Amino acid sequence: MFISFEGIDFSGKSTQVKLLESYLKKQNKKVKLIREPGGTVISEKIRNILLDKENNSMVIETEIFLFSASRAQLVREVIRPCLEDGYYVISDRFHDSSTAYQGYGRGLSVDSIVKINNLAIGNTVPDITFFIDISNEEAAERKAKTSMADLDRIEISDENFFERVRNGYLEIAESEKRFRVIDGTKSVKEINEKIISEINILEGVNK
Amino acid sequence: MFISFEGIDFSGKSTQVKLLESYLKKQNKKVKLIREPGGTVISEKIRNILLDKENNSMVIETEIFLFSASRAQLVREVIRPCLEDGYYVISDRFHDSSTAYQGYGRGLSVDSIVKINNLAIGNTVPDITFFIDISNEEAAERKAKTSMADLDRIEISDENFFERVRNGYLEIAESEKRFRVIDGTKSVKEINEKIISEINILEGVNK
Repeated sequence: MFISFEGIDFSGKSTQVKLLESYLKKQNKKVKLIREPGGTVISEKIRNILLDKENNSMVIETEIFLFSASRAQLVREVIRPCLEDGYYVISDRFHDSSTAYQGYGRGLSVDSIVKINNLAIGNTVPDITFFIDISNEEAAERKAKTSMADLDRIEISDENFFERVRNGYLEIAESEKRFRVIDGTKSVKEINEKIISEINILEGVNK
Repeated sequence: MFISFEGIDFSGKSTQVKLLESYLKKQNKKVKLIREPGGTVISEKIRNILLDKENNSMVIETEIFLFSASRAQLVREVIRPCLEDGYYVISDRFHDSSTAYQGYGRGLSVDSIVKINNLAIGNTVPDITFFIDISNEEAAERKAKTSMADLDRIEISDENFFERVRNGYLEIAESEKRFRVIDGTKSVKEINEKIISEINILEGVNK
């Protein structure tokens, strides 16, 4: 099973990714955790370019191509072999991030991004995608608690940007059956239980 | 004027690029020479990933996205500002290289590459493109004179690959009016004169 997590920065998705990993491992499942961008030697080199604050002159077209380059490598080198080998693959961000961030967020044509995503991932689409939803205000509050020095190039974008990204995710959620919108203001434990319940439903364990 | 040079490796195009640069500078023209991939701080970082022999597990989808990322940055940071400022921009390889190498050479759908090229360069298409044509056999002979240690990741591809790339260029030449196919077995001086003559014709100097 291929599971992706999406959300604006500070939504708490990375915490949930780790909790789900622990849960599945306790069930004696083989689990492969991946993060985007990155996850292969080549993809990590691309990640360094993408997140380096020195590269603040990067144009959006370059950004989308670099994310897609990293992802294309990850899909073929890691995700597909793991899925064929019976692993649960959990991805902290996947192709929906490009649609939400570079498309809805930065204004690139969503149609172009869909075409690029198709070339990057082929038919390797997540079986289920958890969108951990928090409001822009909630994100700003959580962000205020983080030192600026700890933020990467994308996290220092302005607040309107995150509002557009969030709305983008909500639009994708309306058209993609695999999307589960999770209220990110609930407690960490409640969110974790909701996620596990959704996975069990998808696997037919609870039927 | 935006001029691009294309050809399989060892066609001698880089020599011709430099000769044309000298000629135009002697005419007191402003000239900007660029090489692909590369040409901006970000694009050079991408170039390092693309040409590093350690990255031999790179899949073709990643390759096309990295070339496009480098090019998108170069177009917006260098080429467009230079063209607006009256420069002659000479590019050692441009978007046709992606169509020829990743499309015809490595088998990616040419239609996908055209779409990706469109997003990468927009309407910044060369006014004239010189394809320095040599046969696969000629390229192999010239390659044999070069030490393997001096070859980058792409230059060490097999000979059938270069045959497909060459045929790809010839197909593009048939459909693109801006293409000029130049016989790369002629002397360096003859080729240079032919190139200058074609540029003068395009500028209407010789009419």
